Amino acid sequence: MNTTFLKACRGEDVPYTPIWIMRQAGRYLPEYHEVRKMGTFLDLCKAPERAAEVTLQPVDIIGVDAAILFSDILVTCEAMGMPLDFQEKKGPILADPVRSQADVANLIVPDPEEKLGYVMETIRILRRELADKVPLIGFSGAPFTLSTYMIEGGSSKNFWNTKKMMYQAPEIYRALMDKITDCTLVYLQAQAAAGAQALQIFDSWAGALAPRDFEEFAIPYVRRIISELKKTTDVPIIYFANNGATLLETSKTSGADVLGLDWRINIDDAVARVGQDVSLQGNMDPIALLLPPEKLEKRIENVLEQAKTARGHIFNLGHGILPETPPEQAKLCVELVHKLSLRE
Amino acid sequence: MNTTFLKACRGEDVPYTPIWIMRQAGRYLPEYHEVRKMGTFLDLCKAPERAAEVTLQPVDIIGVDAAILFSDILVTCEAMGMPLDFQEKKGPILADPVRSQADVANLIVPDPEEKLGYVMETIRILRRELADKVPLIGFSGAPFTLSTYMIEGGSSKNFWNTKKMMYQAPEIYRALMDKITDCTLVYLQAQAAAGAQALQIFDSWAGALAPRDFEEFAIPYVRRIISELKKTTDVPIIYFANNGATLLETSKTSGADVLGLDWRINIDDAVARVGQDVSLQGNMDPIALLLPPEKLEKRIENVLEQAKTARGHIFNLGHGILPETPPEQAKLCVELVHKLSLRE
Repeated sequence: MNTTFLKACRGEDVPYTPIWIMRQAGRYLPEYHEVRKMGTFLDLCKAPERAAEVTLQPVDIIGVDAAILFSDILVTCEAMGMPLDFQEKKGPILADPVRSQADVANLIVPDPEEKLGYVMETIRILRRELADKVPLIGFSGAPFTLSTYMIEGGSSKNFWNTKKMMYQAPEIYRALMDKITDCTLVYLQAQAAAGAQALQIFDSWAGALAPRDFEEFAIPYVRRIISELKKTTDVPIIYFANNGATLLETSKTSGADVLGLDWRINIDDAVARVGQDVSLQGNMDPIALLLPPEKLEKRIENVLEQAKTARGHIFNLGHGILPETPPEQAKLCVELVHKLSLRE
Repeated sequence: MNTTFLKACRGEDVPYTPIWIMRQAGRYLPEYHEVRKMGTFLDLCKAPERAAEVTLQPVDIIGVDAAILFSDILVTCEAMGMPLDFQEKKGPILADPVRSQADVANLIVPDPEEKLGYVMETIRILRRELADKVPLIGFSGAPFTLSTYMIEGGSSKNFWNTKKMMYQAPEIYRALMDKITDCTLVYLQAQAAAGAQALQIFDSWAGALAPRDFEEFAIPYVRRIISELKKTTDVPIIYFANNGATLLETSKTSGADVLGLDWRINIDDAVARVGQDVSLQGNMDPIALLLPPEKLEKRIENVLEQAKTARGHIFNLGHGILPETPPEQAKLCVELVHKLSLRE
């Protein structure tokens, strides 16, 4: 098996820098659209055979060093009892947002094999099919990010309602975060038990928080999840606090093996902030995939160069690949990362 | 006159920390809605007497130490030849986006007194009416931020078209930036000549750029504007690169007297990055205005404490005040900043 990804997570020597791409199983691939057209986005998440199929596509088509489960961070919100819908253009809708202590009390901490069994089944299929290829990454949303969707009822520009609850009713906010944390923990434990070989926790909206609010309201819950996970599994854990350059020192206290970086920070700047006892993942601007080949090569070289001081480095984009991206550019990126990082 | 704001911009001693609030003349004030209902948003920008009236409102109602011209950064795009419209919910629309060298050639560098005379007239009215109160801040958008609206045709989530042009057709992008820069320079020169006593350059979308792209495609144009401005006026210049924590060292090379900070960075962290020969402005999370009074007081105290090492500090929010904010909370914030920062 190609173990470069797992080794880089742990800071072990690798023959070249491994790469995977956030949203690599997704809308930029015509092969994805072929499968997707059979139903809604949520249907696809819940159909293990098809979800496994799209998970495998980028491994074969663009040659990445890890597969990441095709799913969505919001399936846990549905499993906790909130009706979930994805609408074209509008994004996710959680029709009945959490605003009161009673709303929190109505949420359940689900048994993941019961309510999210389709995810575990997808993982089991993938482990069989991937056996001799690359490792499989499982994932979940981080509690703060999930809380924003549950409180706002969907995506948000300013997170007005989330912060309002945080500032004016911290006891309700903490009760919600406790429940999401419990759910996320059992969900990730179940993914590892089903065969996920690494776990990424996506804190997509962490960058909306001032450092002191991140310290007080977000990171303690991630820390609890990771410290509990570490008791029952030794799979590497990646924590990605998007737009979190100023939160890096605090993010490191999560206990994650790897910190994900968006493209707004130079990796050497990140190393200066977090030191050399954690691996880093990232961080090219997704739209830099549009650069002409020679310039793309220079850009990748620059990222690899900056990452040389890191304990371990997994190349990735700083955010999900965008649907309009030509797949051949993603493939070229993978080839260039492998070629340019090849150790002598 | 209350000169605390101008002194803090220059790093001179002040009896207390001055404060103004981004979007202080705006939708959170019932008095603003009274004036605004007489026409569209753009009508109001173009009606000097009424624009002056709403500019003055927060000076009287919440007690800030500076007034900022009521206007919009996109009026220059209109003056350059692009039809501009503001639609409720949708935001600004520039119907005919710039995509080619020919589109750039069609833009003009306007005579500001001719095409933006209503702004200069507003400034002249305000200087008369403000004479014995507080200084007046003029402003413009920064070239990169204006370029995103002109290329995308409005607001954008990912800036796909802007970055595509930057990466695939840099010669067109630079031609556009040159023209916007020329326009912004004469516009700010005209504002200073009309009586603006400080100038803020808003780079609202700077945080979308990787540090190397910011260095290559954004800051050189801001630097040119500021160095040219400094030849003809000595009013303090504030540069606000929103979401720009990792861009601060580069932002400082703009030559601005003051750097604006959004709420994502602790001010002492910013001082460590930029040193003590530039003043700082910011940076409380706008939604922290919802905190109960005792907690709001602590939050403000914390910001003031962090800013003690800065050369000069102007208190502000880290982004514009949101329309749903109770005006009495803004007023309380101003009082608390004054009380808590009073020098002995």
